[in-house]
Amino acid sequence: MTAVTAEYDALWSSLAAIGRDGSGTNRLPWTAAELEARDWFRSQAERRALPVEQDRNGNLWARWGEGDSVVATGSHLDSVADGGAFDGALGVVCAFAAVDALRDEDVEPQRPIAVVAFNEEEGARFGRACLGSKLLTGQLDPDEARALHDADGVALGEYLADPGPGPLPAAYVEVHIEQGRFLDVPLGVASEIWPHGRFRFDFLGESNHAGTTPIAARHDAMLDFARATLAARKAAEARGGLATFGRVHVEPNSTNSIASLVRAWLDARGPDGAAVEAIVAAIGGRPVRESWTPAVTFDVALRDRIANLLGAPLMTTAAGHDAAILAMAGVPSAMIFVRNRSGVSHAPGEHAEREDCLVAVGALAHILKELAC
Amino acid sequence: MTAVTAEYDALWSSLAAIGRDGSGTNRLPWTAAELEARDWFRSQAERRALPVEQDRNGNLWARWGEGDSVVATGSHLDSVADGGAFDGALGVVCAFAAVDALRDEDVEPQRPIAVVAFNEEEGARFGRACLGSKLLTGQLDPDEARALHDADGVALGEYLADPGPGPLPAAYVEVHIEQGRFLDVPLGVASEIWPHGRFRFDFLGESNHAGTTPIAARHDAMLDFARATLAARKAAEARGGLATFGRVHVEPNSTNSIASLVRAWLDARGPDGAAVEAIVAAIGGRPVRESWTPAVTFDVALRDRIANLLGAPLMTTAAGHDAAILAMAGVPSAMIFVRNRSGVSHAPGEHAEREDCLVAVGALAHILKELAC
Repeated sequence: MTAVTAEYDALWSSLAAIGRDGSGTNRLPWTAAELEARDWFRSQAERRALPVEQDRNGNLWARWGEGDSVVATGSHLDSVADGGAFDGALGVVCAFAAVDALRDEDVEPQRPIAVVAFNEEEGARFGRACLGSKLLTGQLDPDEARALHDADGVALGEYLADPGPGPLPAAYVEVHIEQGRFLDVPLGVASEIWPHGRFRFDFLGESNHAGTTPIAARHDAMLDFARATLAARKAAEARGGLATFGRVHVEPNSTNSIASLVRAWLDARGPDGAAVEAIVAAIGGRPVRESWTPAVTFDVALRDRIANLLGAPLMTTAAGHDAAILAMAGVPSAMIFVRNRSGVSHAPGEHAEREDCLVAVGALAHILKELAC
Repeated sequence: MTAVTAEYDALWSSLAAIGRDGSGTNRLPWTAAELEARDWFRSQAERRALPVEQDRNGNLWARWGEGDSVVATGSHLDSVADGGAFDGALGVVCAFAAVDALRDEDVEPQRPIAVVAFNEEEGARFGRACLGSKLLTGQLDPDEARALHDADGVALGEYLADPGPGPLPAAYVEVHIEQGRFLDVPLGVASEIWPHGRFRFDFLGESNHAGTTPIAARHDAMLDFARATLAARKAAEARGGLATFGRVHVEPNSTNSIASLVRAWLDARGPDGAAVEAIVAAIGGRPVRESWTPAVTFDVALRDRIANLLGAPLMTTAAGHDAAILAMAGVPSAMIFVRNRSGVSHAPGEHAEREDCLVAVGALAHILKELAC
């Protein structure tokens, strides 16, 4: 094992252990585990003598060098519930490791390099994906954000007293585990992100006794939800998109009561906005659009430069990322995907080989040198 | 308003107010509201100088008179979550009111009359319907019962240290709100109860990212659950039975994760056991039968005697009741149903007219006089 590999392993394993339990990785924002991950970030920055700032939106920044035209790299520390170890974490680990690699070469950046961990990227606690980057770039209203509540009724405002726009980096590069088994080489470069949205459906029924209400007198919300689930899948297949009902809330949720309410959240994506609209329309009802991200094409000059530097293929993806939020705000941004042999994502089995991750560290160091040195 | 009506109103409204909130009636076993209802029972007994005993299974008994050959009447005080005010409560209120009516007539019972409130009839907390009567009659193993857990992981054994069989009454009559809009006269008499059961289905999928997992690579448990829900309804229609998925538990229950598990509980009923089996079989998979109650025919002599006394129609029902549990244990038992004009049951809108309830009180007093005096 080389010294670089040993250092990478130590860096990786110290973060991967945080919030890892029998169910997977659990680092929902502002839980004990996620706060521990923030402490990990601060201690890694301190070890490298990089001053750390937590901005008004809860994003963490560790800066190497002075100046305004910042080249940023990183990802996020939060996870979904029972998620995987790599989503987000890999990008932050690669960022610190790339700084180490540049210092090992005695490179001095001409522009400051910042390692960033964006806040609540997954939206698993307050329901808004890319919360920190959306607030930073003015894509989410601060008052609306403060009023968001988690499942226990806690308001986001209790954690973020004064969220809102802030200074943007001059460029942003994010390393991320690939999420769909689309790569058969170690790295790929994102060309664009599919449009995608979250839609809340309220299927209304009438609660009544499951054992005494005749079929003809029933209004069973579970049946409407079942039909919607199958209709969504069928429409996604027809349109070449994706549709998932992964979260439901049932009332009264009792074995011998007919459901009066099934509230279900649809995640819908497609190659273009019309495809997503068609999927949602096929379900019927009156969904509430809780979030919407239009198609994002990454900065063409930057992505082609990176793809050429790395000899890596360009690829589209259907997943949202902070890099896409920054791109929409006009920041030249790019994403480097790391091969995922199983295709497992957002689940405990999520995994990228160490060899591929080390290739990503080298590639990121190379790109940062091009952009900042 | 007559004195009898005013007394009935006071008795009824003092119980109906307990655990009633904006969502309906909430008196799950051993919650503050249900304990308050138990206190109500004790104070009503005390007011009538009836000694109260809580048996080893948490059933409450208030006795009028001495002796072993007890004629019991009552129902239960617990409710489902967000339930109605009448289910269970009406039978207990009618029991006390019938005792009052007999005393107003200066009747002296030759056999003791007991007012009873059975414990956890709904099964809404520990998942077993008719818990108290099943334990009393030896139809539920005490060790199995003690090991039951509620949704928060609390064991039933924390409330019942030594459950098990106990002395049974010589006869049992239960007044209950009718639950399906089947009566167009004030009262009906139960002839039999459909066989019914609860079956737990675990639909297994593979958790993965909702935005990046291709359709062909998905194992989405929600789709299997949706198909099962529609198959259950179709089979119930074909067999003249009832099938309801009213309770689900989803993992990880996250908007952008494919469901790895949908655990769903089926309530299935039918005119005979074969019909119920056919409904369950139509869904497929490997369900776990969590409870099963075979068809119950009430004591023919007693039911016909009561129907004749009241001039009331006989009717079948698909709902389980403590009276059916006692009937299966060999106790001559009967049920008097009170008209339910809306057919709403197990929901906040559940309602029986006061006039019909007063007819039930008079009928119950009449029957108790026949049986005990």
